[in-house]
Amino acid sequence: MGPKARPKCRLATVSPHKLRIQNPESRNMWIRRPLLGHEASGTVLEVGKNVKTLKPGDRVAIEPGVGCRTCSFCKKGKYHLCSDMIFCASPPYDGNLCRYYVHDADFCFKLPDNVSLEEGTLIEPLAVGVHACKRAKVRFGDVVLILGAGPIGLVTLLAAKAMGATKTIITDLVGGRLDKAKELGVDYTLKIEKNMTEVETVSKIGELLQEAPDVSLECTGVEQCVRVALEATKTGGVVALVGLGKFELTLPLENAILREVDIRGVFRYNNDYPAAIEMVKTGKVDLKPLITHHFRIQDSGKAFHMAKTGEGNPIKILIHPNPDDYY
Amino acid sequence: MGPKARPKCRLATVSPHKLRIQNPESRNMWIRRPLLGHEASGTVLEVGKNVKTLKPGDRVAIEPGVGCRTCSFCKKGKYHLCSDMIFCASPPYDGNLCRYYVHDADFCFKLPDNVSLEEGTLIEPLAVGVHACKRAKVRFGDVVLILGAGPIGLVTLLAAKAMGATKTIITDLVGGRLDKAKELGVDYTLKIEKNMTEVETVSKIGELLQEAPDVSLECTGVEQCVRVALEATKTGGVVALVGLGKFELTLPLENAILREVDIRGVFRYNNDYPAAIEMVKTGKVDLKPLITHHFRIQDSGKAFHMAKTGEGNPIKILIHPNPDDYY
Amino acid sequence: MGPKARPKCRLATVSPHKLRIQNPESRNMWIRRPLLGHEASGTVLEVGKNVKTLKPGDRVAIEPGVGCRTCSFCKKGKYHLCSDMIFCASPPYDGNLCRYYVHDADFCFKLPDNVSLEEGTLIEPLAVGVHACKRAKVRFGDVVLILGAGPIGLVTLLAAKAMGATKTIITDLVGGRLDKAKELGVDYTLKIEKNMTEVETVSKIGELLQEAPDVSLECTGVEQCVRVALEATKTGGVVALVGLGKFELTLPLENAILREVDIRGVFRYNNDYPAAIEMVKTGKVDLKPLITHHFRIQDSGKAFHMAKTGEGNPIKILIHPNPDDYY
Amino acid sequence: MGPKARPKCRLATVSPHKLRIQNPESRNMWIRRPLLGHEASGTVLEVGKNVKTLKPGDRVAIEPGVGCRTCSFCKKGKYHLCSDMIFCASPPYDGNLCRYYVHDADFCFKLPDNVSLEEGTLIEPLAVGVHACKRAKVRFGDVVLILGAGPIGLVTLLAAKAMGATKTIITDLVGGRLDKAKELGVDYTLKIEKNMTEVETVSKIGELLQEAPDVSLECTGVEQCVRVALEATKTGGVVALVGLGKFELTLPLENAILREVDIRGVFRYNNDYPAAIEMVKTGKVDLKPLITHHFRIQDSGKAFHMAKTGEGNPIKILIHPNPDDYY
Repeated sequence: MGPKARPKCRLATVSPHKLRIQNPESRNMWIRRPLLGHEASGTVLEVGKNVKTLKPGDRVAIEPGVGCRTCSFCKKGKYHLCSDMIFCASPPYDGNLCRYYVHDADFCFKLPDNVSLEEGTLIEPLAVGVHACKRAKVRFGDVVLILGAGPIGLVTLLAAKAMGATKTIITDLVGGRLDKAKELGVDYTLKIEKNMTEVETVSKIGELLQEAPDVSLECTGVEQCVRVALEATKTGGVVALVGLGKFELTLPLENAILREVDIRGVFRYNNDYPAAIEMVKTGKVDLKPLITHHFRIQDSGKAFHMAKTGEGNPIKILIHPNPDDYY
Repeated sequence: MGPKARPKCRLATVSPHKLRIQNPESRNMWIRRPLLGHEASGTVLEVGKNVKTLKPGDRVAIEPGVGCRTCSFCKKGKYHLCSDMIFCASPPYDGNLCRYYVHDADFCFKLPDNVSLEEGTLIEPLAVGVHACKRAKVRFGDVVLILGAGPIGLVTLLAAKAMGATKTIITDLVGGRLDKAKELGVDYTLKIEKNMTEVETVSKIGELLQEAPDVSLECTGVEQCVRVALEATKTGGVVALVGLGKFELTLPLENAILREVDIRGVFRYNNDYPAAIEMVKTGKVDLKPLITHHFRIQDSGKAFHMAKTGEGNPIKILIHPNPDDYY
Repeated sequence: MGPKARPKCRLATVSPHKLRIQNPESRNMWIRRPLLGHEASGTVLEVGKNVKTLKPGDRVAIEPGVGCRTCSFCKKGKYHLCSDMIFCASPPYDGNLCRYYVHDADFCFKLPDNVSLEEGTLIEPLAVGVHACKRAKVRFGDVVLILGAGPIGLVTLLAAKAMGATKTIITDLVGGRLDKAKELGVDYTLKIEKNMTEVETVSKIGELLQEAPDVSLECTGVEQCVRVALEATKTGGVVALVGLGKFELTLPLENAILREVDIRGVFRYNNDYPAAIEMVKTGKVDLKPLITHHFRIQDSGKAFHMAKTGEGNPIKILIHPNPDDYY
Repeated sequence: MGPKARPKCRLATVSPHKLRIQNPESRNMWIRRPLLGHEASGTVLEVGKNVKTLKPGDRVAIEPGVGCRTCSFCKKGKYHLCSDMIFCASPPYDGNLCRYYVHDADFCFKLPDNVSLEEGTLIEPLAVGVHACKRAKVRFGDVVLILGAGPIGLVTLLAAKAMGATKTIITDLVGGRLDKAKELGVDYTLKIEKNMTEVETVSKIGELLQEAPDVSLECTGVEQCVRVALEATKTGGVVALVGLGKFELTLPLENAILREVDIRGVFRYNNDYPAAIEMVKTGKVDLKPLITHHFRIQDSGKAFHMAKTGEGNPIKILIHPNPDDYY
């Protein structure tokens, strides 16, 4: 039977951008074959007979990947590493950028009254930030370096602060992104110039912080940034790699070995939605500044054009499949 | 649907003793309503269509409890704490002391060629020992005190040694049990006399070990033994409570608080069958000396009488539901 | 030589109450034989020749216990469990309720500019709260029950919130203390009435929280409160025992064992001053509401009388040995 | 004062090879300026007045690095990361390849009666293996890949088996080293041929093990071996980097990130001597096969020549500074 037999619920969805698309013009296409979408929230329309945790009308954030529930990863609580994961928009599985969608009930997380459906769509990227901070063991009082102030860098910053980082610095090539990071509460920003050497970057990070970061969260995937992370991090600290770039990287590993700086990859999330939702519910994290644009599903083409070109400086663009919840 | 929809296999079982029974005379009763049995192995007769890990003829040890797979405990890898656990012989669920039995495939663990079906029945109690040692974080070089040399004390001793304990001591009121522990490789034994005070017991443990145990594994549930464990354990060490006795206990807790001796309960097992089977496969643990008696299923009444009275000094008594595998 | 040979600095101190005293009338006595005092801050007067981290004029919080630095506890980072600990006011060692005091430099923690010497005296109890939360593994999103709203309960509440607790409840017999907890930001309070049963208390905690606490921090040492903590805590959760009461306690341990609720004693602190100071520096914790009274050292008798009788509802009473820093 | 003021003892030493040397011909040189030596054992000649753990005549293994005891690394139990570490033969500090040597008592570990002074010299490299296995969290039942069968690879193999690895494989370019690994109990060996691709190597490891290793311990520092380790290790597993090679390495990091394979450097050891000595004492580890050659200190030139050229296929070469303990 597989996980299809699990308690299910049918949802109406709100979906954000960051999806690669082939022909977004035709709205009907989504209903027939929603190939895209893994950052979504929705309202429950009906529930399977064994569903006890949800009822029609509940608004939920959707965790888009469901493990097989029987392999050793799933049984040990590391379902995100399950090799039989069913993940939205990860072929051969469809995505959830569509009007109606069916999903396992235990991967639908009820939104508190004070969290909107729109914020609900950003629980997915925030959960990546939460998972990154858990992997990096961010705890109260940590000094944290974040490399990259794109959407994932920003949610990782928010998660790190909520989880106890008391001194934070973020780097980026783009000044506008650093301004957004300041709005979100980062303590220091460092604009990387094209001609800055790694040594200079590490040195400037140290000058600003007046100490080395306990944890570095690398959110760009760029080789130079990974190198800076390894060099800048405190002896005995952790570098968590969230961003993906080239398949191969050339790194000054000896330094990390001798100083026992751990390197940990971050893959999606794992039991992280409850904490992410709690961050928004309690006001520790404000996701609203990240939502910069909205589109109707029939205008998805424009949404993807904006995401691709960066015109209008979008951070997160929401696509609304259901006319009622927007306009 | 619930876990019934999971990949299943049908098994013939070999079952050990330690089961409370009302009317064991009637063999047919077991087939219709096998209320008893949770320590069992068996041979796979047929498998469900999605089962890929097992095939007919495979000999397996049966982990008798299956979680709901959707609650937060199950998803975090602590399925043994699931409140919707289906556990053999835990009402309203039947046990597996029966000739034919259906079980979730991922809770049936294939036995290596050099591990017999009879040893396979003792994987269940050995898994309790493994879980206890994991909870107590037994590691290489640890000095370990085990209180109680009954079946659970003995398998816990075996697990502790396999997991790295290099100096072990076991206590019991019954000399014969201590002899069995010596046969299984314990370094020191201490026979508790009825009139020994706690102070004397703790003192004798220290004399024998010439140091305090890093870990104490309490396998009796007797108040005095829990008290001795708390007093004897090294500062900063762990007392794992495996045995159950009175609902309430009076304990010298202040001493444990001031010395940060952690107290951890042990409930069943959790992802522990693979390690338990590996212990037997690699010869680190020899379960055979624990199997002292055998009965046909039609003689279950005699088996339970023996278990109850202790006549013949049984440790583990196996009941064989299938005539072919015994006699 | 022992730790006396370590880099040292000489300090002027500010000390709070909670000290047992024999004859507090004579100020000179303190100089000759300061038997009391372990919660103190001070200003550095001079430093030993190897001291590089401090200089005269630095204001510091004093961690009052210094381990032997050579035993296995000290070398493994658990110096608070060192059996050769030199601890202020723990015989045969003098306390630091005195005007001039010499201490190891690495146990003197520089106060940031925005933290006063008076707040500095409360870093010691706050560090107990930090250590309790570390022992209990409080993390973001945890639901936390605190039993007892005395000084230690209140600082533990503050530490738990700073370390990520998002829903907190505190209990006490005294309404005034619960009011102070509300002022400090607790989410729920429960006034314990003399005739309430444990079952009622557990039930009311559940009603208020609408769920079971992940962590319970017991700060009274009272048997009934420890019992409530064990019963109320979520399956798989942690009860940290901070308070000390009777040497022996009668507890419903079976329930805790079957639900794997861990029990962990909390003894002082261990590398916890930096986090405690960071909490105050960053404004996550405001200690000032806890300081209710001040006395000159020559009026110590009045201070101890107030602490003993509770007249004036003191929380923390500071004794100022140096006239210049007060009045 | 610094650590010189700690309890001290004076030792006679036995030292092994693996030391870089400038002019080993002159024996007297060692006495005046023992620049070399960090793997040593010795017999206590006299003890400082505060030394309680050792007495003249005790045979000890020497842990060659002593931290400052006051920095945050030392106080948190990570003294091996202390930046003020005094480490034998690490300039400006002298080594202990000399007849008489003074060392902090708590870094001298008494050898049990059944462990010889010669075995005592190899506690140092074995402690590296123990530390590597602790960093990699080797536990019972783990499948372990070791890359490199030189001295450090071999002691790491021994430590991994003692700490619970039940299936081990080791790789090397040199068949003779693999033979030694077989003698030491490895389950599988893989001789790397110069023209083997990484894919082939990973594939052959999988064929031999019939599964992926939980842990890979890289003991060569060679880029290709680190790459194989990252690719071969099980999803969610650990690669511990023990060997040092080029300062920079080009690695297929994306794969490790997506599969959350952790990368952890291994620097020396940290509280690992007791476990290493226990391994030898209990017979879990036999170091004797690793000692292949012996020299008098006046023949050190020959010893270093052998170490450099590899003539005679040495594994560990001991240099005996004291005529009485050899020849």
